[in-house]
Amino acid sequence: MKARVTIYPRPEVLDPQGKAVHQALTRVGFDGVNSVRVGKSFDIELKTRSQPLAMKQLEAMCDKLLANRVMEVYEIEILGKAGK
Amino acid sequence: MKARVTIYPRPEVLDPQGKAVHQALTRVGFDGVNSVRVGKSFDIELKTRSQPLAMKQLEAMCDKLLANRVMEVYEIEILGKAGK
Repeated sequence: MKARVTIYPRPEVLDPQGKAVHQALTRVGFDGVNSVRVGKSFDIELKTRSQPLAMKQLEAMCDKLLANRVMEVYEIEILGKAGK
Repeated sequence: MKARVTIYPRPEVLDPQGKAVHQALTRVGFDGVNSVRVGKSFDIELKTRSQPLAMKQLEAMCDKLLANRVMEVYEIEILGKAGK
C-alpha cells in the first residue's frame, strides 16, 4: 500500500521558510504570488494491503515521529496498492 | 487560485533523507514499512483566477526556482480558487 503524508505548519504558526520562498519568487520576477507555505511530503510504501490498517499505522507514525502536533498538521492520502 | 506543488527526488536518484526516516520508523517499532521517500511541498496562493495561467506560472516557478530538474520531479495540483 502506497501513501503520501503531507505535513505543514499550522495556519496560525509563522512560516519563515515560506516567506523566504515567496520573497525569492518575487525577486526572480514572479509578482503574482499572494502567499507561500512550505511543508514536507513523505511517500511511504507499507507492507500491509489493508487500507484501514495502513491509515492506522500512518496516523501513529505521524503522531510519534513524522509530525510535531503542536506546530504542525498532517494529511494522509492513500495512493494505491503497492506494486501499482 | 490555490495550488500545491510537490517535489521529489527522481526515482533513480538516491534519497538518503528517506532512508534515514525509514530507519527511524523501524527503530521506534514501525516494521511494516517497505520504503520512504522524502519530498517538499509548497502551498502557493496566486493572484490569478485563471487555471491555465496558474499552471503556466507554477511550471515556470518550478523550472526556475523551486525544483532542480536534473535531480527532481515536480507535480502541480490546483486546489481551488483563492478565498475558498
